[in-house]
Amino acid sequence: MITWDAIEAAEHRIKPFIHTTPVLTSAFLDELSGVQLFFKCENFQKTGSFKVRGATNSVLQLSADEKQRGVATHSSGNHGQALAWAAREAGVQAWIVMPSNAPQVKKNAVQAYGATVVECEPTLQARENTLQKVQDETGAIFIPPYNALRTIEGQATCAKELHEQIPGLDYLLVPVGGGGILSGSALTTQYLSPKTIVMGCEPENADDACRSLKQGEIVPSLNPDTIADGLKTSLGEITFAYIKELVADILLCSEKDIKRAMQLIWERMKIIVEPSSAVALACLLQHKEHFRGKLVGLILTGGNVDLSTLAFE
Amino acid sequence: MITWDAIEAAEHRIKPFIHTTPVLTSAFLDELSGVQLFFKCENFQKTGSFKVRGATNSVLQLSADEKQRGVATHSSGNHGQALAWAAREAGVQAWIVMPSNAPQVKKNAVQAYGATVVECEPTLQARENTLQKVQDETGAIFIPPYNALRTIEGQATCAKELHEQIPGLDYLLVPVGGGGILSGSALTTQYLSPKTIVMGCEPENADDACRSLKQGEIVPSLNPDTIADGLKTSLGEITFAYIKELVADILLCSEKDIKRAMQLIWERMKIIVEPSSAVALACLLQHKEHFRGKLVGLILTGGNVDLSTLAFE
Repeated sequence: MITWDAIEAAEHRIKPFIHTTPVLTSAFLDELSGVQLFFKCENFQKTGSFKVRGATNSVLQLSADEKQRGVATHSSGNHGQALAWAAREAGVQAWIVMPSNAPQVKKNAVQAYGATVVECEPTLQARENTLQKVQDETGAIFIPPYNALRTIEGQATCAKELHEQIPGLDYLLVPVGGGGILSGSALTTQYLSPKTIVMGCEPENADDACRSLKQGEIVPSLNPDTIADGLKTSLGEITFAYIKELVADILLCSEKDIKRAMQLIWERMKIIVEPSSAVALACLLQHKEHFRGKLVGLILTGGNVDLSTLAFE
Repeated sequence: MITWDAIEAAEHRIKPFIHTTPVLTSAFLDELSGVQLFFKCENFQKTGSFKVRGATNSVLQLSADEKQRGVATHSSGNHGQALAWAAREAGVQAWIVMPSNAPQVKKNAVQAYGATVVECEPTLQARENTLQKVQDETGAIFIPPYNALRTIEGQATCAKELHEQIPGLDYLLVPVGGGGILSGSALTTQYLSPKTIVMGCEPENADDACRSLKQGEIVPSLNPDTIADGLKTSLGEITFAYIKELVADILLCSEKDIKRAMQLIWERMKIIVEPSSAVALACLLQHKEHFRGKLVGLILTGGNVDLSTLAFE
């Protein structure tokens, strides 16, 4: 079990590099839901998502020799940007394997942080093979996106900030993809605010965490079709173990719910969040009677949306 | 001249109703500009813009008899929403004259705050005539959008917060339409941080404030064509007098600059601002050599954008 000391140590380690993100509220959404909502804004985090917490916590603990060799991962999304940024902060080389169909804007972001983008076919097999090849050639250390203790300890610092900013939450709702932020949040909550009930939030179209909890074993997500692209991944052994033990329930929502929740957040809170972030509010609104009058924290996990198609030009 | 006491009294009056808005920074935009930027986020203000400061300050000072009669204005934008909201907070009836071609989402917002929308032809003449008719019929008190002391005193509280949050600014850049937030900001700055140089920011396509300052008299804006719809109005006698005396310069920017600045703010700061808000950053980026290494405050005036055309559905 990850100890409280390990979470505190992670926070101490990464604090000089990352933001303590703000908690926002919305009178409109409180009225709409009948719930007191507290949004932890990781969309304002460095690189635009919470992923930088785990990536930074991992990179900073490499030995001098490992730092010399560099780091690598495969990612079509936020973990790639986060690792590229964390590596640059630590003066470490980084290789990010990205599927050839990843949006150019994401490849540009990774390159802008000084990392090397290695393209591959858009299949999990190709991603893993290409990463292995990169590691064989460069000796780079693999930094996992969620299923690793250092990653989870880093993600756990987000809920630590939230509980310290808003003590006494009745519930904490957290999106679940690979389970890094959910298991980290549940761990922290157990230590710091044990009365707070932690729930995972998931699209119906990518409900592998829900099914895994029901069946008592990891049910992988097979080509899930959801706008919440950050939540397509399946749980890992480590994250599943923590979630099984510490998470009360997994809530589900439809694609329509996600889009509506995202629009509400953009329009009413004036902040940009990605679809995965909106899943927590979408689930809450689907089950609002359950939470009526309660204090509920929601983690807005990131804000990296491709805006290039909007009519800015 | 509006006194410091009047500004303090306005702040004291409206504080229980409005937000003290946060000041955000962006490492990316600092690096891009070579300037230390401090964004005062009035997009997070109640009703989504600074306009609620002046409207609330005006409504709260009505006599019991005037409150009984209600309030009215004409507006296709933020002042209408702000007045509707401020009136509801004070338990006062409100009539908002809106052009028939105003977006439905704006009419809905005004109605959601409990005000009565009175539609008219989309001309200034029709707006003024219709407002007069509403006043004749209801006895409602006209609350002006910018050219009135109580309005300016209310808008002046925004820069007061900013100077208290970030002391020692070298410059303060403020968008200018009718001049309410610019003249209010300049007044506050003169009292609270007299070394800070205040500049107005304006689209080239609606450069009436710039031309007015040059000619020493108000040059009205004639059907200006700009995406910054909040800055189409011309200066008033009162705002012009303050701007002439207290504002160092008016900077200009192109439509392309505005769109680019807006996209930068959305993408990099993860916040929704309307085009008028982006004008300050657009002007700064056009003149960045002038500000190099300085501490510059920018007022993000509002965040009311019609998102209904985005692909949320």
